[in-house]
Amino acid sequence: MPVKFADRMSTVHRSFIREILKVTEDPSIISFAGGLPNPELFPVADLEAAAVKVMEETGPQSMQYSTTEGFQPLRQYIADRYREKKGIEVDADEILITAGSQQCLDLLGKIFLNAGDNVIIERPGYLGAIQSFSIFQAGFKTVGLEDDGPDLDELEKVLDSSDAKMFYAVTNFQNPSGLTYSSEKRQGVADLMRGRDVVFVEDDPYGELRFMGDFHKPVVRGYLEDNGVLLGSFSKVAAPGFRLGWMVCSGEMRDKAIIAKQASDLHTSTFAQRVMHRYVSDYPIDSHVEKIRACYGKQRETMVRAIEEYFPAEVKVTRPEGGMFLWVTLPEGMSSMDLFDEAIKNRVAFVPGRPFYVDGSGENTFRLNFSNSDEAHIEEGIKRLGTGIKNFLAK
Amino acid sequence: MPVKFADRMSTVHRSFIREILKVTEDPSIISFAGGLPNPELFPVADLEAAAVKVMEETGPQSMQYSTTEGFQPLRQYIADRYREKKGIEVDADEILITAGSQQCLDLLGKIFLNAGDNVIIERPGYLGAIQSFSIFQAGFKTVGLEDDGPDLDELEKVLDSSDAKMFYAVTNFQNPSGLTYSSEKRQGVADLMRGRDVVFVEDDPYGELRFMGDFHKPVVRGYLEDNGVLLGSFSKVAAPGFRLGWMVCSGEMRDKAIIAKQASDLHTSTFAQRVMHRYVSDYPIDSHVEKIRACYGKQRETMVRAIEEYFPAEVKVTRPEGGMFLWVTLPEGMSSMDLFDEAIKNRVAFVPGRPFYVDGSGENTFRLNFSNSDEAHIEEGIKRLGTGIKNFLAK
Repeated sequence: MPVKFADRMSTVHRSFIREILKVTEDPSIISFAGGLPNPELFPVADLEAAAVKVMEETGPQSMQYSTTEGFQPLRQYIADRYREKKGIEVDADEILITAGSQQCLDLLGKIFLNAGDNVIIERPGYLGAIQSFSIFQAGFKTVGLEDDGPDLDELEKVLDSSDAKMFYAVTNFQNPSGLTYSSEKRQGVADLMRGRDVVFVEDDPYGELRFMGDFHKPVVRGYLEDNGVLLGSFSKVAAPGFRLGWMVCSGEMRDKAIIAKQASDLHTSTFAQRVMHRYVSDYPIDSHVEKIRACYGKQRETMVRAIEEYFPAEVKVTRPEGGMFLWVTLPEGMSSMDLFDEAIKNRVAFVPGRPFYVDGSGENTFRLNFSNSDEAHIEEGIKRLGTGIKNFLAK
Repeated sequence: MPVKFADRMSTVHRSFIREILKVTEDPSIISFAGGLPNPELFPVADLEAAAVKVMEETGPQSMQYSTTEGFQPLRQYIADRYREKKGIEVDADEILITAGSQQCLDLLGKIFLNAGDNVIIERPGYLGAIQSFSIFQAGFKTVGLEDDGPDLDELEKVLDSSDAKMFYAVTNFQNPSGLTYSSEKRQGVADLMRGRDVVFVEDDPYGELRFMGDFHKPVVRGYLEDNGVLLGSFSKVAAPGFRLGWMVCSGEMRDKAIIAKQASDLHTSTFAQRVMHRYVSDYPIDSHVEKIRACYGKQRETMVRAIEEYFPAEVKVTRPEGGMFLWVTLPEGMSSMDLFDEAIKNRVAFVPGRPFYVDGSGENTFRLNFSNSDEAHIEEGIKRLGTGIKNFLAK
């Protein structure tokens, strides 16, 4: 007899991006569809040296079960780095090590969401968060993004009317739009969140990858004192294949997150945590991040310049100050899904924008990744894409 | 304003064992409370060599994002090993790599459990499963364990009356009881499960650690054709600190498990998977497992012999043929919680049995771990515990 699945599984589907990536595996296609960091920049030799040290010095401990909270020295390192680099106070005990920051979303779903509870997300919003919260049968309310962050009037209306449990935001070089919250918007968001029983979840995987413009403190603890959760990751500054992220939270939220983590996977890989700790302790992470910034910055520059050259003037693009993505808006009425088919024929790929909108809008938008293609491929790929768009506009 | 947590969090608590382990951290206490493998047996040098090879040969790929399903060669290795060692047919595509087998429980909760759905578990049952399914607000029905597996009459009644979604069982050297399902019981369980819409979840983390007695095929695919899920782990045969486990499932179940895994953490550590694959490919895992068996077998022997010498005759213990645990039953009316306090005064620790019973019974039982103490400490610890029990009986 067929088994009966949980209700939640009827509304959650395979990651749209992962399905698209299968189409773009053909090596003749220049793909701006993925969201991958450039593997040539992974600090392989230093991580190898760190792994050997960990194995030789603390082999058995590094392979044993360990605490759910995470490896204390790694948590201390993260806390110290927040103080030095971000100007906020975080205690090591407030950090929970997770399997990438994606797992934080799962844990937050577990501790906050009853079926039908509302989550506020940005429009467009991060697909991984939509997928993760959907597992907990969340309803979604959205707030539009302006060039410098969310539309505050809209945010206030949504907060007042939606009885939401969380507002999930990517404040630096957002995935997918590339946009960053200005200081004024950060202050505005904090002022709107303050005194409510809504959790502000600030996801910041790309914050260290700033190529230009001014640094801003995180909203959580930089502007907003209570009810904030801050997520971080080693995926973009070191390597994603270790699956190491973390969440900053305190009090009862922290206690419940630990229980949820225990039930989910006991704890994150002891070995991965110790290797990463050894790497950040013994090797120059700052100069490594500088190298990534310089490389991605050049690639972003090349992509923006190529777009100016090859795309028709009526196509709009964001000008991100960091991160890995650009966001393109076609003239109203055009479909990026249809353009996708045209583009594949021209051997170039991107991610159509509609899945990033839970309300079904965004038909005329798409995402471009610039971190995982070299300058020559960016130049050629954008040229092909420009040709495709022009053909498409001419139809 | 205080935030509102999800309903599910009001019924799930911190792992009882992890709380107990804090009490037993004092090095003067001989602890049989943990469930840890012996770290001296971890194949540190071989895993180090494997890690170095992975870094040198495929460094960037081993640190990049990868597929949710897991590293294909590792999945193929697991499938091949099932055929060779367990005599069952498994296709590599039916294997999903997870963050330890604990994550399988989380994924199964996600794909099968609506709030209030029933899960059948053994009495006593595995705490990690109780915790994990509780997150999904499961109800529990139990089936008692006899020396050779579940009470089949009781299982039939529970299956007929409970409208359960799953039956979760640990068929080899069960945690906590140490008991193993005989071939007859396996056949009986399969016959009772066949044709129902109830999923049989067979967890087998200890199956390779058999010291004596006859091997039995897994119930899933060995006796039961459909609606079975089989869980496995590298934690007990290699090392738990890599957090590598897997589940065997097919069809729609497999597709939904992949979606749930994507939403949970995208995928399991690429690096950990590649290192483990390299280790099992290039190094003699069979002779390594033989070493673990020989060591744990001797420790189990020492513990059983010491119990016969130092425990009063009215105390009953299981005689496991493998694994890591022994199960003790005190005379009716005695409380192992009270004995625990007495034992700690004598500098010896165990895990009281009641948390392993969701129905509140088991007051007079407790669990002893023999994998993580050497023979001298086992001898001394059991002697101390015997003295404690005798004092306690005399009260």
